[in-house]
Amino acid sequence: MEKIPVGILGATGMVGQQYIALLAKHPWFEVRYVAASPRSAGKVYREAVGGRWNATRGDLGGTNSPAAATLTVEDANDVSKAMAAAKRGDLAFVFSALEMGKDEIKALEESYAAAGIPVVSNASANRWTGDIPMLIAEVNPDHADIIPLQQKNRGWDKGFIAVKPNCSIQSYMTPLWALLQAGYAVERIIVSTLQAVSGAGYPGVSSLDIVDNIVPYIGGEEEKTEQEPLKILGTIQGNSIVNAQGLKISAHCNRVPVIDGHTACISLEFGPKKPSIDEVKHIWTSFKALPQELDLPMAPKQPIIIREEPDRPQPRKDREADKGMAVSVGRIRPCNVFDLRFAAVSHNTVRGAAGGGILNAELLKAKGYLG
Amino acid sequence: MEKIPVGILGATGMVGQQYIALLAKHPWFEVRYVAASPRSAGKVYREAVGGRWNATRGDLGGTNSPAAATLTVEDANDVSKAMAAAKRGDLAFVFSALEMGKDEIKALEESYAAAGIPVVSNASANRWTGDIPMLIAEVNPDHADIIPLQQKNRGWDKGFIAVKPNCSIQSYMTPLWALLQAGYAVERIIVSTLQAVSGAGYPGVSSLDIVDNIVPYIGGEEEKTEQEPLKILGTIQGNSIVNAQGLKISAHCNRVPVIDGHTACISLEFGPKKPSIDEVKHIWTSFKALPQELDLPMAPKQPIIIREEPDRPQPRKDREADKGMAVSVGRIRPCNVFDLRFAAVSHNTVRGAAGGGILNAELLKAKGYLG
Amino acid sequence: MEKIPVGILGATGMVGQQYIALLAKHPWFEVRYVAASPRSAGKVYREAVGGRWNATRGDLGGTNSPAAATLTVEDANDVSKAMAAAKRGDLAFVFSALEMGKDEIKALEESYAAAGIPVVSNASANRWTGDIPMLIAEVNPDHADIIPLQQKNRGWDKGFIAVKPNCSIQSYMTPLWALLQAGYAVERIIVSTLQAVSGAGYPGVSSLDIVDNIVPYIGGEEEKTEQEPLKILGTIQGNSIVNAQGLKISAHCNRVPVIDGHTACISLEFGPKKPSIDEVKHIWTSFKALPQELDLPMAPKQPIIIREEPDRPQPRKDREADKGMAVSVGRIRPCNVFDLRFAAVSHNTVRGAAGGGILNAELLKAKGYLG
Amino acid sequence: MEKIPVGILGATGMVGQQYIALLAKHPWFEVRYVAASPRSAGKVYREAVGGRWNATRGDLGGTNSPAAATLTVEDANDVSKAMAAAKRGDLAFVFSALEMGKDEIKALEESYAAAGIPVVSNASANRWTGDIPMLIAEVNPDHADIIPLQQKNRGWDKGFIAVKPNCSIQSYMTPLWALLQAGYAVERIIVSTLQAVSGAGYPGVSSLDIVDNIVPYIGGEEEKTEQEPLKILGTIQGNSIVNAQGLKISAHCNRVPVIDGHTACISLEFGPKKPSIDEVKHIWTSFKALPQELDLPMAPKQPIIIREEPDRPQPRKDREADKGMAVSVGRIRPCNVFDLRFAAVSHNTVRGAAGGGILNAELLKAKGYLG
Repeated sequence: MEKIPVGILGATGMVGQQYIALLAKHPWFEVRYVAASPRSAGKVYREAVGGRWNATRGDLGGTNSPAAATLTVEDANDVSKAMAAAKRGDLAFVFSALEMGKDEIKALEESYAAAGIPVVSNASANRWTGDIPMLIAEVNPDHADIIPLQQKNRGWDKGFIAVKPNCSIQSYMTPLWALLQAGYAVERIIVSTLQAVSGAGYPGVSSLDIVDNIVPYIGGEEEKTEQEPLKILGTIQGNSIVNAQGLKISAHCNRVPVIDGHTACISLEFGPKKPSIDEVKHIWTSFKALPQELDLPMAPKQPIIIREEPDRPQPRKDREADKGMAVSVGRIRPCNVFDLRFAAVSHNTVRGAAGGGILNAELLKAKGYLG
Repeated sequence: MEKIPVGILGATGMVGQQYIALLAKHPWFEVRYVAASPRSAGKVYREAVGGRWNATRGDLGGTNSPAAATLTVEDANDVSKAMAAAKRGDLAFVFSALEMGKDEIKALEESYAAAGIPVVSNASANRWTGDIPMLIAEVNPDHADIIPLQQKNRGWDKGFIAVKPNCSIQSYMTPLWALLQAGYAVERIIVSTLQAVSGAGYPGVSSLDIVDNIVPYIGGEEEKTEQEPLKILGTIQGNSIVNAQGLKISAHCNRVPVIDGHTACISLEFGPKKPSIDEVKHIWTSFKALPQELDLPMAPKQPIIIREEPDRPQPRKDREADKGMAVSVGRIRPCNVFDLRFAAVSHNTVRGAAGGGILNAELLKAKGYLG
Repeated sequence: MEKIPVGILGATGMVGQQYIALLAKHPWFEVRYVAASPRSAGKVYREAVGGRWNATRGDLGGTNSPAAATLTVEDANDVSKAMAAAKRGDLAFVFSALEMGKDEIKALEESYAAAGIPVVSNASANRWTGDIPMLIAEVNPDHADIIPLQQKNRGWDKGFIAVKPNCSIQSYMTPLWALLQAGYAVERIIVSTLQAVSGAGYPGVSSLDIVDNIVPYIGGEEEKTEQEPLKILGTIQGNSIVNAQGLKISAHCNRVPVIDGHTACISLEFGPKKPSIDEVKHIWTSFKALPQELDLPMAPKQPIIIREEPDRPQPRKDREADKGMAVSVGRIRPCNVFDLRFAAVSHNTVRGAAGGGILNAELLKAKGYLG
Repeated sequence: MEKIPVGILGATGMVGQQYIALLAKHPWFEVRYVAASPRSAGKVYREAVGGRWNATRGDLGGTNSPAAATLTVEDANDVSKAMAAAKRGDLAFVFSALEMGKDEIKALEESYAAAGIPVVSNASANRWTGDIPMLIAEVNPDHADIIPLQQKNRGWDKGFIAVKPNCSIQSYMTPLWALLQAGYAVERIIVSTLQAVSGAGYPGVSSLDIVDNIVPYIGGEEEKTEQEPLKILGTIQGNSIVNAQGLKISAHCNRVPVIDGHTACISLEFGPKKPSIDEVKHIWTSFKALPQELDLPMAPKQPIIIREEPDRPQPRKDREADKGMAVSVGRIRPCNVFDLRFAAVSHNTVRGAAGGGILNAELLKAKGYLG
């Protein structure tokens, strides 16, 4: 089977680099188009990235350098370049890992979609557009089905935009969803996150702010953590996705001196119907969803891994679970104030960024939206 | 004025060393007696500690070495040595920073008290004994007044035991107390702590467990964090201190790669009467208590310091506030689920350990319980 | 082809765990015997290790747990258990990762060898025994040929002992050897090492000693770093290996807050014949040795990888090069005092420990010494 | 005695902030003038610095905020503002902690000097100007005596420029000088430095480059480390300072995950006359220089502190020695290749930056060059 040619917008940034690394040996997709800021345009990708290559997977300079390292970088602002690539069969869709102003990203992603190039995005710019699905492949794969409506709304032919949510919610959304699906409504969540520095991009967090320190604040992160789950758990009604009702979330987001892997400490209150701790564990261990049924290449075999050791999960030891795509949970115990407490870890630049984007693309392909 | 001669039990441990460092220039107290395990007994303190000196304050080997560094270490198990020191005027009371089994500490502290030597303790062994006060000098100084009853209960003459609570609650107990005192009942608290490695003593946390990592578990810490506040906020009734009612706390305790300084992320729910954010700030900024009124040497001028920067308090930047004795709070904002959210930092081995113990002793001295 | 059954002595320690992880999918060897201290004996390996599992490769608790995790741990002191395993076909040879006193290790390794069980060791106890080879597979594979003499000396039949050197020299010994082989004698080396905390085992280095700190001392490490290269570069003469002459090494060994990967900064002085910087690079890039010729499973394709970026190699970014088995060098430049300066990184618990031991065993198998 | 009014150029940067903190309670000097980039000009200092305040000493937001925090920031490029301040008695001289292009700094420092305002600089721009002294107060205080010549050369009246060297050499220059002064010539030095992240300013080193990592390269640092000592040890000859002869230095400069405190591992070769290890220790322990004789406020009582513990000095434990102004040395032992080996630590942003600048100003004041 011939591989599908894909492009990466924002290819030289932190998340863009993760895409290059994770797609190096992908069975379905092949990176044949890379685009970034005008500053990088015209350079060979390897040189454009230069000393800023920080991905822990793959290696641009060593013996296992991915083929994409030799591509010439295009100007991401110039959609005509992408259209030409699409025309010559080098580009079926793009992953967007753009790093610019929100309004610019919104407009640019729309330009690609309008030009017939589907956009699978990591950026936050389009997360709150009503007819654009914000997907976690295991949680709300049905939201993808708003795409035909989106195309109709906007008069787009083949192009569309699908986005993924913020990395800070990745570690507890799948566990939460598994509980909801099992019939246990959740009404209130108080969550503290301990987020890795890679979440801030490169150069991102200064070492002077984080060695022997933590920072109890990440701009905009608490709002995303509190609101995005409501759309993900929402339903398609008429022309757009309508937020779920009845759930309130309060988040404390902290930056910690960890390279990769976001940890979350969660207390949650169920509705009147409350599962036992054993039921919770059973629900999580046995949880499978559409990506597992479809056996998508990037899907973790077991989306939620329970660690029974008293002091797990931990970011350095659990972030790589199942290629960095599984969520590890532990310390599952009653809450002294609400009903249930637990800790969860997921890999923020894999599951929470490029890996999650790739899984979304696999889902969209399997559903027939990528041709 | 002649200084009061004091002793330190467990003088060679992490907290014992902090006592040596913090008392080096104390205006009231002078370390004239040091005791530790039989293994250290007979050695000069400086040698007994050797390469394990970790205190960031003071210095055993440099030009500013405290006088206590030249004392000979006694066997802490041998109370007769302390009695002899008391007799010759070298010991008025002891600070207990003992590191042994809980039952052993309980028995040993009682032996010192029975021998007429007051014990101001950091250990957890006697925290739940009904007639022993667990003191935070700004919060429940009146609990010290159970001491005469304690002495009567046990037939002790001059000796008694007073303890301090666990370091994990230090960063939010004073803010909580200030709110209660201002007339705002608090019913529910969910707190996540990010605790420094020095809280585990030396060698304590292995570097392999904490570099590029966090550990979402500290044995016994959540229970202490949830229960100790109830006694501290309790009242003397008859023969003992009775826990406060109506407050529930749920804690997630994490170890983070920070040397000193515990951070806490707190969400709390008031009773029917709820202050505005501005009132909360006003209450905290203007809060003073008995240690400030008495102008005790170790007391912070302002017990609660509000940081208005969006990303403070931070452990490395705020732990030293007012000699490490003040609590720094910030990010004061409404909670999306409860009423109020904030972050707080305090120095765990100063305010939360030796500094807190010294302040307790100053309070007990001022109240007349130390002769 | 049936796999060769192997055992691991000291299987529950840091290096023992790395053996379990690295051998999980080895094409030639299969772990069928694990032995450790009497305290662990009788327990299932997974339970014996419990929360102390620190290996970054493999996972004892997750979905990819190696088969060896279910083996029952034997007492490493009881050689008869190993003899029984050998008899029933479950043990052809052992890897020794013993952690006990040097004399005990020496005696115990000899007992296994005397019982007909070859010992491929990581321990330092037998490194300076004259008829025991200290092997780096790319540097002195011919030293293995002292084994028949060793067996004759001691009246051993099939058993023998072969050891590997200390991890601190791993990053520069192969580059050094490549230069020597190309005809450039080296007379003086001054090296500073920046060594990872995993080199000290678990719990090893206290977090209080290494967060926001470095320790300019590692007990015994400088002596090993200065002396072991002389034996490795030596020659078999009569009954034993005789040290190389004419090379002097001075080492400064530092512990740094890095999990895995030792870095070395090397200045070296050639004899009268001196290569240009370009020749040095050519020698290193083109260097191959016996493990590469034999295409041994654990051998890196390219033993020495040159990084041309100005700020590489770095331990976190280069330690995993070629499965953690290659040495990465960079900053190759003239020395202001000697002739040549460079920086080198290698993975201390892979190439410098278990991976190096496995490669030695592969070499010994290929040479016919393991039956 | 009335304090001398001083200004700080580049006051909002990392080193500028250290000046503010260290001068907060200085007995001779009082900060009455702060200048920075046009972007900060017009703002109150506290606001101009905002969340970027990283100094570990002093505190802009707390109860002990220095008086200078309320000054209005001037544009450092506008020398007329400084002249006006000088005229009204608010500025006697400036400390330069400018962060801009080298040529710009050179020109700007000259403008201040030409305007009659002496410049005590931390910047590297003027270090290699022949008639500008590069001062370490304990090593070459006599180089200050080139100032009259400098003024004459350039037709300057009261103004002049004096600079300090790079922070990387601070930890071994005083020990080296003490040996030279005792009559022991040193011919060759090979040094590896392990430098703190604060040396790179703020934001400086990205956390992604240094958590669980070291970087074996700092741009320009090895050249400074190798060459600056030669000027410092040089002599005034005719119109300028001429480099010392006969000493060669080779440096490996590494960045390590340490907040403050540079460590150096030094191997050195004496000329024909070689001291014993005991003589070296005696020379260092008894070393005093002009700043000690003059009892300058910022001078350490003992410039070189010897640590006898096997694993000291360490940056976190020794950087604060004598207000951060002393150099701590340890591991004094013979070198296997040269004659002497040792490790040294000094505080890079105190002794190596603002503290060293203040001490230079105190020296210049005592020598009569600051009016």
